[in-house]
Amino acid sequence: MIRINEHYNQLKPSYLFSDIAKKVEAHQKAHPEVDIIRLGIGDVTQPLPPACVKAFHQGVEALADAASFRGYGPEKGYPFLRDKIAVNEYQSRGMDIDADEIFISDGSKCDTGNFQELFAPDIRVAIPDPVYPVYLDTNIMAGRAGDFDARRFSNIVYLDATRENDFIPQLPPGQVDLIYMCFPNNPTGTTITKSALRLWVEYAVENRALILFDAAYEAFIRDESLPRSIYEIDGAKEVAVEFRSFSKTAGFTGTRCAYTVVPKACKVYDKNGETTGLHGLWNRRQATKFNGVSYPVQRAAEAVYSPEGKVQVTALIDGYLENAAIIRSAMDLLGFDHVGGENSPYIWVDGQGRDSWSFFDLLLEQAGIVCTPGEGFGSCGQGYIRISAFNSRENVEKAMERMARALK
Amino acid sequence: MIRINEHYNQLKPSYLFSDIAKKVEAHQKAHPEVDIIRLGIGDVTQPLPPACVKAFHQGVEALADAASFRGYGPEKGYPFLRDKIAVNEYQSRGMDIDADEIFISDGSKCDTGNFQELFAPDIRVAIPDPVYPVYLDTNIMAGRAGDFDARRFSNIVYLDATRENDFIPQLPPGQVDLIYMCFPNNPTGTTITKSALRLWVEYAVENRALILFDAAYEAFIRDESLPRSIYEIDGAKEVAVEFRSFSKTAGFTGTRCAYTVVPKACKVYDKNGETTGLHGLWNRRQATKFNGVSYPVQRAAEAVYSPEGKVQVTALIDGYLENAAIIRSAMDLLGFDHVGGENSPYIWVDGQGRDSWSFFDLLLEQAGIVCTPGEGFGSCGQGYIRISAFNSRENVEKAMERMARALK
Repeated sequence: MIRINEHYNQLKPSYLFSDIAKKVEAHQKAHPEVDIIRLGIGDVTQPLPPACVKAFHQGVEALADAASFRGYGPEKGYPFLRDKIAVNEYQSRGMDIDADEIFISDGSKCDTGNFQELFAPDIRVAIPDPVYPVYLDTNIMAGRAGDFDARRFSNIVYLDATRENDFIPQLPPGQVDLIYMCFPNNPTGTTITKSALRLWVEYAVENRALILFDAAYEAFIRDESLPRSIYEIDGAKEVAVEFRSFSKTAGFTGTRCAYTVVPKACKVYDKNGETTGLHGLWNRRQATKFNGVSYPVQRAAEAVYSPEGKVQVTALIDGYLENAAIIRSAMDLLGFDHVGGENSPYIWVDGQGRDSWSFFDLLLEQAGIVCTPGEGFGSCGQGYIRISAFNSRENVEKAMERMARALK
Repeated sequence: MIRINEHYNQLKPSYLFSDIAKKVEAHQKAHPEVDIIRLGIGDVTQPLPPACVKAFHQGVEALADAASFRGYGPEKGYPFLRDKIAVNEYQSRGMDIDADEIFISDGSKCDTGNFQELFAPDIRVAIPDPVYPVYLDTNIMAGRAGDFDARRFSNIVYLDATRENDFIPQLPPGQVDLIYMCFPNNPTGTTITKSALRLWVEYAVENRALILFDAAYEAFIRDESLPRSIYEIDGAKEVAVEFRSFSKTAGFTGTRCAYTVVPKACKVYDKNGETTGLHGLWNRRQATKFNGVSYPVQRAAEAVYSPEGKVQVTALIDGYLENAAIIRSAMDLLGFDHVGGENSPYIWVDGQGRDSWSFFDLLLEQAGIVCTPGEGFGSCGQGYIRISAFNSRENVEKAMERMARALK
């Protein structure tokens, strides 16, 4: 008899953003006249940078001719892209990351979801709350979560991000083995300082733990004092994997390209405490279960690092950051406490006593605005909503006007 | 301490095709003058069909304009593609498969590799020998394989394909829960008849087992009496998942698009023997760990079903099938026993007492031809090589001439 992985029964019946999509669809159906503005899922809205479009077309054209045709590419990605990333994102900023330590993929969701496969089922996992739901859900699926007591799982060490700690989790009190971090944070939009991040790296070294550092939003950092990569911290190469994506940087959410850095110096352990290389393990996983990213997509991603591409990407992100500033001002005027939105596309808004989903419903029904209910990111998100700056200037301004009317 | 998934240590240190690539690279380095012809990995060489190229460009262009821009798509794939597949691949051939039962992905390697995640760790798995290495390797990683005794894993039920059974495995003697099948077969190139396939469906129904049917090469079937889909067999919708790909059909190995059919009627069981829907489980897996296929790639795949696309794809496959016929004739002339290559791009050649890797080395060194050593696909592949028809006519003819000289 073909029996299921029972841990799937521990998951909430559907995925947060699918739930939201259904609510929005129902509202639109009931009110077809409403021009709903989406500041929810965190999806970009602006077109691909022209440099990427041009390279994308050239990549397609290469596949149209037998002489330039490309079939299966390297599972790790083409060297032309890995080299550019190594130089532009790391080496030019003083970090000693080699192209061979970079794995191209079709998305950070996949990579952050799949990475836990490499580890024993009984390691102790620390996960922020609130957080991107994929970290927790994939560990539930793998059977690492333990029992659910209506609020939390017994085997997960939750790293609370609350008003009390300025939404930056403190080090866990005991010993954990695998730590998920995300800065600039999704959903709170907060950033971490180098000195605070250094404490986590030191913790990982001392406890022989591994940090999975999700830096999908690093391109939004404009404050030069803030770390854009965990490898800016000495010693991080031995204890941290970093996830990066072109999704939010260059508008690739529908194009699909990301990368993960697994330094060769990064060590994990077998059951006898012997060290083994993490790089080789991830390489084996990817070579077995993944077949590389579409060639034209990798060419489009490469163009992010061309002189024009750099200018265009900066302009794209500047635009979203200006949207974020508009949202922050509007929240100030309306008297809502909030964090984020300064080096991040997300603004985390305190509902002033409102329940997250009620606040979500209110904004949808009274203002035709889609946000994301904070509770969907974890129990510490209760009472908050996440507003995303990913939309056109016009829509953001319209949304803020509508919100002012609805909440005045 | 961050401990690894110890099952990774049960894997062979590297993946078959990576090993081959390294050998070929070393040979090329030592003999830069040799024009190596690759009839190994099963990668296509002909350009994308013009209809796909055109649609691919249009898809890219849509991302260049805010009005037509697409961000995150549905994790299951866009309805425009799922609808076309349902109609053209299934409904028009009398199979009642709905678009909602089709999941678009970036490759059958990923899907066949990931699907086992949905099941309990202690189910009994039947895997053909020889076979595409991904089925076994991903079950090893998941801890289902048991101990290795230098030849085989203790918990795997091997379905031997040998000369004695005309390379079509017989039903397992006892009860198994999950069965991997692949027809037209990789690596042997053999096909299964409807009556033989019916026995497997009946076995699955009787034993409440699930069949994972890999039909990546179905487009090569020209014999109308042979099943192109397992759903041509009555009752299969309750017990079978089917994997299909645009890789070999339309030359998408470097473009990346595939799909998996999970019928809503397909049932699996929880530990109490209660039935549960497999469709919902896979949907949850994909929604959590996958973020959809690049929009322009899905548009390119859709064009496979346009009137021009259909003609072009047929011509593409006809060309490879003619290559296969040339290879079969050459093997006949050289006096090598072989199967496959009639409704398949692969020819499975008996080495006449030669060990697989010796035969591989001989062809590489004496003829500058890359094949795949049969032993890489399992112990029953020992003594065989797989020759692939995926190359240009010119290269195939040249390769056969060289082989004749080397083996005469």
